[in-house]
This record gives sequence, C-alpha cells and structure tokens, in this order.
Amino acid sequence: MIINHNFYMKLALDEAWKYQGFTYPNPAVGCAILSPSREILAVEAHHRSGEAHAEVNALKSAYYKLTNDAYILSLETSADIHAYLINNHNNMFNNCSLYTTLEPCSHYGKTPSCASLISELSFKDVYVGSYDTNKKAQNGNTILQKNGVKVVSEILHNECENLLFPFKKFLEGRFVFFKWAQRLNATTDDGIISSHESRVDVHKMRDVCDLLVIGGNSVRVDRPTLDARLVDGKAPDILIISRDKEFDRNIPLFNVKNRKVFVEDNFSKLSEYKNIMIEGTSKMYELSREYVDLYLCYLAPTFGGSSGFDNINDKFDILNVRQADEDIIMWMKRI
Amino acid sequence: MIINHNFYMKLALDEAWKYQGFTYPNPAVGCAILSPSREILAVEAHHRSGEAHAEVNALKSAYYKLTNDAYILSLETSADIHAYLINNHNNMFNNCSLYTTLEPCSHYGKTPSCASLISELSFKDVYVGSYDTNKKAQNGNTILQKNGVKVVSEILHNECENLLFPFKKFLEGRFVFFKWAQRLNATTDDGIISSHESRVDVHKMRDVCDLLVIGGNSVRVDRPTLDARLVDGKAPDILIISRDKEFDRNIPLFNVKNRKVFVEDNFSKLSEYKNIMIEGTSKMYELSREYVDLYLCYLAPTFGGSSGFDNINDKFDILNVRQADEDIIMWMKRI
Ligand SMILES: [Zn+2]
Ligand SMILES: [Zn+2]
Repeated sequence: MIINHNFYMKLALDEAWKYQGFTYPNPAVGCAILSPSREILAVEAHHRSGEAHAEVNALKSAYYKLTNDAYILSLETSADIHAYLINNHNNMFNNCSLYTTLEPCSHYGKTPSCASLISELSFKDVYVGSYDTNKKAQNGNTILQKNGVKVVSEILHNECENLLFPFKKFLEGRFVFFKWAQRLNATTDDGIISSHESRVDVHKMRDVCDLLVIGGNSVRVDRPTLDARLVDGKAPDILIISRDKEFDRNIPLFNVKNRKVFVEDNFSKLSEYKNIMIEGTSKMYELSREYVDLYLCYLAPTFGGSSGFDNINDKFDILNVRQADEDIIMWMKRI
Repeated sequence: MIINHNFYMKLALDEAWKYQGFTYPNPAVGCAILSPSREILAVEAHHRSGEAHAEVNALKSAYYKLTNDAYILSLETSADIHAYLINNHNNMFNNCSLYTTLEPCSHYGKTPSCASLISELSFKDVYVGSYDTNKKAQNGNTILQKNGVKVVSEILHNECENLLFPFKKFLEGRFVFFKWAQRLNATTDDGIISSHESRVDVHKMRDVCDLLVIGGNSVRVDRPTLDARLVDGKAPDILIISRDKEFDRNIPLFNVKNRKVFVEDNFSKLSEYKNIMIEGTSKMYELSREYVDLYLCYLAPTFGGSSGFDNINDKFDILNVRQADEDIIMWMKRI
C-alpha cells in the first residue's frame, strides 16, 4: 500500500461517509491532521448541522492527543472549541498538515472561519479534495494562501465530489435517496432485517429528512410509526404513494405530532421538500426510479425471508461501503 | 476516530485480507511500520508462499520510502531483500515500531528469521496480534525480547485470529471455503456476474487450491474449464458432486493436463486434500453446508438475472469486507 496524500485523504473520506445522511443542510466533510513529522494526530468528521465542522473536530481531537488536556473534550459548541484552541494552542500546530475533503469555510459568523483558524494556528499546508461551492467573494483556499499556508487542491477529487454529491443536490433544490434493508438473499420481508445500530442510523436520517416517502402497501401491512424515536429526533412529513386513499387512521404514523401526512398516487410533492428519503422495497424501487439521486442499502449477512428484489436490471457504482455492527452499509449511484 | 495501536493493527489487517486465499500453505499476514516519530512508513502483507513475509515486504517498502533507493524494488526474493537491508540499513530503523498480525517467524532457514531481522535493525517495539502456532523451541516474541525489543501481544487479538483461521484449519488437516458470486438481488444465473478483477482473484485462489468442488448441474450447463489461466496458474483437481456419473468428456475441465477429476455423490474425497474451494450456488450451498469453514462472497452491485439463493436460514459474521474494482468482497463465518 502506498502511504501518500491520497492515503490520508482516504482516511478523512471514510470517516466522513460514516455521517453521510446526518449532516443536512450541511455537507458531509472529513478531516485528518498530521504532525510536522507526519504522525496522524486526528481523523474526524462533521457530525451534524449546528455542531463543529470537521476541521474543528479534528483540531479538538489532535489538541487532546498532544496535551492530554481533557478539558477540551467537555467543550461542545464550535465557538467554545475555537476560543479554547486560540487561547491554548501554544504553537503546537506550527507546521502541521491538514487534509480536508472540502475547502475550509471562509465565512466569519458566530465563530471565525475554519480557514482563519487554520491560518492562525500556523499550519504548513492544507490538502483539499473539493472546492467550496459557496459564492462569497473570498474563499477558504485564498484566506489560507494569503496567510502563508500552502494549499494543494483536488486530492482524490472524484471521491470527494462523490461525498459532496448530496450537498450539491440540496443546493440545486433537492436530494432524494432510496434506502432499503435486505438480507444476502435479497429478501426484504419477514420481520426486522437490520441490526440495532443500522436502525439507529436510519432514525438519525429521518431526524434530518423533511419528507419520507413510503408505499401504501407497506403502511397497511407494517403499520409503522416512521419517526426518529431511537435518537429522540423529529419525525419527518410523510408521503404515502397509493392509489387507494383509504387508510386505518389508527396506524401510528398518522398520530405523530407536528407532522403532515400526504396520500398521493404520484411524486409531485417531492418538489416542496429538499432532503427526501424514500424507504421501500422492489415495487417502490421501480416507482421512484426516476427521482432518486443515490441509493443506500443496509445489507444484513443472513439468509431467510421469502420475497424481495427480483428481476430488475440496473447497475450501480459503489461510492462507499463499510461494516457497522453486524451489517454492511453501501451508498451507491445508479449508472 | 481514535488513533491508537488498534488503528495501526487494523491497517495491517485490512492489507492482509486482500491476500486471504492466495497464501496457502502460509498464513495471510499483514505488517505496518512506523518511524520513531510515528509516521507510517509502510503497510504491506504476505502475498504468496515462496515470496517475502509481510514484515520483509513492509521493511522493503519502508526502506524505499526513507531512501528513495529504487534498487530495493528490483529485488524479488526474500533472501535478496534480507541481505540488502542488512547491508544498507544504516540504522534507519532504530527505534521504529512494527505492527504485525502474527508473531514474527523464528525459523532460521534460507534467510534469517523475521524476528532476527527486526532485532538486528534495532526496532524499539513490536505489536503482535496472534501468537505463532509453530512448535519450535524458540519463538519470535522471545527472540525479540532477548534482543531488547519490547513486545506487546494480543493487539486486536480476535480480529487477527479471524485472519489466521484458514491457516489454523490447514494445520489441523484441511480448510474448506465456499465461494460464490451474486448480484445485489441474490441472483447467480444469466452470464458473468463479477468484475474482471474479482475473476482474477478467483483464479489466484484456484492456483493454490488442491481441490475444487462443483455441482454436476453447473458442469453440464456452464461447461467450464475451472483452471487458473488468468494468472497462468496450476489447475486444481476437481470433485464433481453428482448422482448421475455420465458427463460429456468434451467439457473443457476434463481435458486439463495434470489434473484429476472425480465424480462422486458425496464429499468423502475432501479428506484427501488440504485447501479446498467449493464453487456453487444455492443447491451446493445446502449440500456442502456441514463441511464449510468460511464463506467468500463476490457481490456485484447490479440487479438482473432470475434465480439464485432462496429461503435458506443462516446467519454470518462478516470477518472482512472490501471494495475491489466494481465488486464487494466479503469473507464470512456461519454462526
Ligand atoms: Zn468550517
Ligand atoms: Zn517471517
């Protein structure tokens, strides 16, 4: 294996993919920090909108590794971590290197931008995957360069663009992903398929989705709630795709507070939402095919059940695969 | 992500799994080398019996990284690499750290053992996953310690034992794995499923298998050759499981030189071989279930075909998953 810039960027990428689907309306971003002698000090990601950026999480983790000062671990807000780093860095990041899948932010809001913070900490060089799509006059790479930080762009550019793809779709108007769980023998019926950790993952996604699409038959058979209770999250609005508009209104999903439920025979509601998850199996896969940007498959390493996907001709590029708990999680793009 | 001993051992493990199935009669082993300041200098694996051990491959790669002396890359045999390192190391490995999934070898054969080489290069510490199962009087850890190298054992011990599992089965008498290729919708019919790289992988395994088991129906329908032509390898003996002993002897597999072909209605031939691959689909899966130690699945990210696995109740632990070319490769143990 070759240990080069791509290797470190890949570490940042893999960490970021663990949080893909959770960061809306922010992009998934990963960051690695190396000491001047090339020790990996941290590999972290952005976890959730409102929380620290990937670079700040990586700086926090690297600071702790270098100092063993556990106080920084108690700091939650990006502003607090920023301030603590500025006051306590003692030049420990001088000549360090940073790898980030996305150009550091340049917007000075509640806290200084990541580009300013990295400059102030006197990093030697920053390796960037994708360019920031933000249309502000001054961008992160420029701030870094003005402050004497060397910037190298487009490291694993295609892979970083894949990571950023959902965010670019948000910016264009909406991102739609189709999520399903199946066994190795492609069945999707007969009870719970995924591990607990996979189901927690899905609840984290529901928490930040504004619309969840599901088929009428699934609603009638499974009588689901479709909320984010495993993570105390908010329940998304629901679009049930069904020709028959009659449903037993005691089905739990109809009785979740602060939620709209639509029953339609088409997908036109999608145009009113920006981050949309479709949950389904073979039939919904076919119905929704033209609207879907990415596919997310939770694959359980089991055989069982009796019906599932059959006889659909499609090919995918696997953008990321990882093992989580018992299951395999794959993000894919239809090609 | 926490960057600790487990992190570096995991790098070694993941590299080693890429060669699982190719190293018979040797174990799959991975090795990472870190500089005194904790820079990753190399992550390499053992590739094939008769070639350099994982530690030697990692030392070769680390030496090249430190010196840019391309001459070492031209050296193929373990003896040549050993000798070159001993003559040219200039103490560059003083106080380096080494992570290896398996205790370094202690046997002084054509070349000094890895334990002696690591000692002579004055490594500071060696992190070991699994213990060597070799029953020689003196083992690798002891040699290292006698030479003043600190040894820390059982780093990611369970994961390293999983990597070593096929080798331990060889030592006990035989290792049997069931390999199949399927699409996402679990189909196994209708033409070539796997990518070219996956098929090269399978040919590398056939090259070191001594017996390949296949069902009579597959032989009649697919008329396969079942050799290792993609890697210029040797063709394994074949056991066809079939009640009907009549076959068209023009089917290519019957006309490969230096190969025995058995047609039997049972698996008793397995007792005469040590490294056995079963290739099959749903029916062979059921027939061979009691003989199989590990499962290897090549998953193509496509939908298509019409028949495959159905209605089998089994659960697996995923020992390793990785993306290779277009496909996903999974090693699994039935639980
Ligand atoms: Zn930022
Ligand atoms: Zn050795």
